[in-house]
Amino acid sequence: METTIHVTEKVRLRNPVMIEGLPGIGNVGRVAAGYMINELKMKKFAELYSPHFLPLVILGTDAVASLLKCEFYYYKSPKLDIVVLTGDTQSISPHGHYEICDKVVHFAKAIGVKEIITLGGFAEGKEVDEPRIVGAVNIKKLLKKYEKSGIDFGKDHPVGTIVGASGLLIGLGRTHGIDGLCLMGETYGMPLMTDPKAADRVLHTLSSVLGIKLDLSRLERIIKEMEERIRKTDKIHKKMLSELVKQGKDDQVRYIG
Amino acid sequence: METTIHVTEKVRLRNPVMIEGLPGIGNVGRVAAGYMINELKMKKFAELYSPHFLPLVILGTDAVASLLKCEFYYYKSPKLDIVVLTGDTQSISPHGHYEICDKVVHFAKAIGVKEIITLGGFAEGKEVDEPRIVGAVNIKKLLKKYEKSGIDFGKDHPVGTIVGASGLLIGLGRTHGIDGLCLMGETYGMPLMTDPKAADRVLHTLSSVLGIKLDLSRLERIIKEMEERIRKTDKIHKKMLSELVKQGKDDQVRYIG
Amino acid sequence: METTIHVTEKVRLRNPVMIEGLPGIGNVGRVAAGYMINELKMKKFAELYSPHFLPLVILGTDAVASLLKCEFYYYKSPKLDIVVLTGDTQSISPHGHYEICDKVVHFAKAIGVKEIITLGGFAEGKEVDEPRIVGAVNIKKLLKKYEKSGIDFGKDHPVGTIVGASGLLIGLGRTHGIDGLCLMGETYGMPLMTDPKAADRVLHTLSSVLGIKLDLSRLERIIKEMEERIRKTDKIHKKMLSELVKQGKDDQVRYIG
Amino acid sequence: METTIHVTEKVRLRNPVMIEGLPGIGNVGRVAAGYMINELKMKKFAELYSPHFLPLVILGTDAVASLLKCEFYYYKSPKLDIVVLTGDTQSISPHGHYEICDKVVHFAKAIGVKEIITLGGFAEGKEVDEPRIVGAVNIKKLLKKYEKSGIDFGKDHPVGTIVGASGLLIGLGRTHGIDGLCLMGETYGMPLMTDPKAADRVLHTLSSVLGIKLDLSRLERIIKEMEERIRKTDKIHKKMLSELVKQGKDDQVRYIG
Repeated sequence: METTIHVTEKVRLRNPVMIEGLPGIGNVGRVAAGYMINELKMKKFAELYSPHFLPLVILGTDAVASLLKCEFYYYKSPKLDIVVLTGDTQSISPHGHYEICDKVVHFAKAIGVKEIITLGGFAEGKEVDEPRIVGAVNIKKLLKKYEKSGIDFGKDHPVGTIVGASGLLIGLGRTHGIDGLCLMGETYGMPLMTDPKAADRVLHTLSSVLGIKLDLSRLERIIKEMEERIRKTDKIHKKMLSELVKQGKDDQVRYIG
Repeated sequence: METTIHVTEKVRLRNPVMIEGLPGIGNVGRVAAGYMINELKMKKFAELYSPHFLPLVILGTDAVASLLKCEFYYYKSPKLDIVVLTGDTQSISPHGHYEICDKVVHFAKAIGVKEIITLGGFAEGKEVDEPRIVGAVNIKKLLKKYEKSGIDFGKDHPVGTIVGASGLLIGLGRTHGIDGLCLMGETYGMPLMTDPKAADRVLHTLSSVLGIKLDLSRLERIIKEMEERIRKTDKIHKKMLSELVKQGKDDQVRYIG
Repeated sequence: METTIHVTEKVRLRNPVMIEGLPGIGNVGRVAAGYMINELKMKKFAELYSPHFLPLVILGTDAVASLLKCEFYYYKSPKLDIVVLTGDTQSISPHGHYEICDKVVHFAKAIGVKEIITLGGFAEGKEVDEPRIVGAVNIKKLLKKYEKSGIDFGKDHPVGTIVGASGLLIGLGRTHGIDGLCLMGETYGMPLMTDPKAADRVLHTLSSVLGIKLDLSRLERIIKEMEERIRKTDKIHKKMLSELVKQGKDDQVRYIG
Repeated sequence: METTIHVTEKVRLRNPVMIEGLPGIGNVGRVAAGYMINELKMKKFAELYSPHFLPLVILGTDAVASLLKCEFYYYKSPKLDIVVLTGDTQSISPHGHYEICDKVVHFAKAIGVKEIITLGGFAEGKEVDEPRIVGAVNIKKLLKKYEKSGIDFGKDHPVGTIVGASGLLIGLGRTHGIDGLCLMGETYGMPLMTDPKAADRVLHTLSSVLGIKLDLSRLERIIKEMEERIRKTDKIHKKMLSELVKQGKDDQVRYIG
């Protein structure tokens, strides 16, 4: 069995931007992606299954079991088409990360994606009052494009490495000619504690980068609604994250997403 | 070498129900499946070998060695055709679970299976006097179909995840349009201690779900007869289960099968 | 890169018996195979390389480096053709054992092998004065064929499982219609201590089973000559064996070869 | 996703010698390779990506992220064409080493390489005042070719095994008819401490072996300039090396490169 993307709705998109928000430090990326899907009333059009996820099914409160999966949502507007990639988990094996991200990048290319923006948390290891947004790009010219967006490109935060999908998607994207930006919200770094403040800041920067309006007033309420599923899958993320951390642990690897 | 299913007898079945009972917590699924095979005088028609099993052969008391394997049995009746999947072991690697279950689901589809029922134990971590049957489905409509079967669909037992073949078979089955039901008998949760009471309850519910009569009076005697082989392979299961538990360990993952 | 068998000399054999003697407990199989190759002046005709061996090269005393490998030797006589499989190591991963043994069995089939005899040590965990030969077969009819060869087929030694190549080769051989016999010499079970007595007993039984004469008087001297290389690669075997033991460790799994 | 070599510039070379210098003990090979690239003003013509590297991207000081990779550089002169293989990392899995080195050897063959020279450090486990160069070859005839080069071919240093790319490249090279020489500079053996003295000695021997002149006076300065990147990726190497050491650890396996 290989990592597979099932397209459930054929949809024609015009050079969409792809936003990735998978589980990670502070759940920042995932919560931000979930909020966007909710606010923009995005529709699911594809699912990704992988043998590199934990070998289990999750049960909803109604006892309906489903495979661990990632999901692709789309949003069409006259101004901008957007694809969001979110999901239950990331790979539990190092080479699985490469396989999954490689499939995603090929899929992105096939649907015309010109830029991938990955979202995550940047673990400070201490309480953060006003989270800043730390960024990375996959080609120099983007630094100029985003210089006025308030993103800290390493001036105050010398990030050494980005572990997992948020890193590999922009790294592999480059080899396929797709531009990549990674936005990381400063957070305490407790894997199992969702950080709404960091997600709020990431969404704020993202909406400015995309040039769309996102009403963030409902974020805390929506996060509460997401809590049931988050609580359940956080148990799974804990395992997945401990693998990720094992893979990238050192004093410079504080970002995982 | 890939996971391979060798068909040893070509047999035409009419939309059979596939029952899975592989080694797991309390050996509930495996013992229940073994009893069905015995009671219904089912015949073996296929074997599954996999490089994701432990790299060893088991010796019978006659010093005849055989590869670890899973086996498919069939039962034909005017009313209902049944296929039972049982075996010595499950995968020892996470992605091996996906590979094996994916092969089984493709095979199920090829022989016309419309529904998969997986059997297992639900670890309570304490003595259980009157084991209940906890269930999960892979599509909502089945909850209605089975609402009068006495299965607890999460009301008293909020199951979070189902690890291993019993979970993946119904999860992957869904992506191939095959309905899935998982029946778990409450048990103490000692991996190496076969629990006849839980197996009895699972078989009771299963016979009612299938609408067939199963005389359960011989269960304890048959379990005793199975003991020699069970004792031998339990050593192997111990290793396999410790892997499964490592993959799914947390306070919500109490079911493994 | 896949496990590959390089044929270095094309040779036509008439239904040869294949003897396997790879590193394992007490080095019994490897030393016995090495002695046969030496005594029968067998010639190498194929080599096996695998990505499932340790990722290193071994240096001879002349600083010439070579990949870890297994080797196939042949012996032709009017009465009987023999192929011996020996080598530096076994797989370090569980599924690697399956891949390597599967390649060997396909190769055996291609060159007309009708029977595989695997050699190894049976760890007693205590000093053994007069090592007996414990045996296993892969089909019942062979028990009759070998009933007068003095092999203990589990009467005194109930062997539970056989881990590694000696087990898998006869297990996989069965699925390809190749008969299989495993001969294990009782030994203390110290992985890094070559046991000449057990090797002597295994060779004694093997020569009787094959119906050939083997002068065993030079065994101890030849073992001394093999010592340099054995000492060097024993370091590697230690790692490989600790993997094998981890995979099969329990009170019934005392045989590894 | 497979290990892939992307050719970025098509270049015709005449029987080039390939020099490998990847991260390892004392960073000897990598620093020596880096210095050669710098001194000979070599140009990059290919990149290698692999799913067997750590699943992360590295960020430069300008916040530009890039995948972990190896790189091929070339140098053309009337007298001799040279290809240098260097990079951020080696495989983190045992079979990944085989896959990557197999791809490199196939690539080497395709571009006409007749000889591979691998560079590394030989861990003495103690302070080394005047590092000697310990060598290994992949075919006996090379011992004669290099007998006057001052390389110690195991007389004083009986090397048992060479772990990782420096070993596998010459081992696999042999099976493709490519000659191989491994040069190891004696060093303390601290993985994370670059050893300029050993790199100097390796470069000295290498220039004599290649018959080219290399001005080594800038070595210490260049190493300082490389320090920023080395410091960053050393964190990654630490993880990779601990894997390598785990794979080859014993009193004879002191060389890793």
